[in-house]
Amino acid sequence: MRVDLRERLGRNVRALREAQGWSQEEYADRSGLHRTYVSAIERGRRNPTIDVVERLAAPFGVEPGSLLGDPGKQLD
Amino acid sequence: MRVDLRERLGRNVRALREAQGWSQEEYADRSGLHRTYVSAIERGRRNPTIDVVERLAAPFGVEPGSLLGDPGKQLD
Repeated sequence: MRVDLRERLGRNVRALREAQGWSQEEYADRSGLHRTYVSAIERGRRNPTIDVVERLAAPFGVEPGSLLGDPGKQLD
Repeated sequence: MRVDLRERLGRNVRALREAQGWSQEEYADRSGLHRTYVSAIERGRRNPTIDVVERLAAPFGVEPGSLLGDPGKQLD
């Protein structure tokens, strides 16, 4: 089953956030985004621009492109 | 010098397109985008959504996330 890119992004963000033990609220503060937006991103409901993908990646210190990678593969 | 993510995308798209020997026109047809939009993307002048990044990646058969990678590193 081909996982839609928006879902991939959502799964990657949720996995990284939970690995850090951050709530959506805390992660939203760290990324400068609103909690409800983070929630929608994690549910694959948003089609963000690359600038926003960069902000989503920043708190984790990972490459922005890796958030679009296959959640099955290891995130660098 | 930190290369802005939009510039990275542009450099990656241009490098892949030229490696295929495609004109911007041909690549625009293959990706279903307008040539002037492709030109602006390659000059780092656009902030596309991830859906568009997916369309930009499709003709090359590469992962969408790789278009946001460091142009210095090898594209998978």
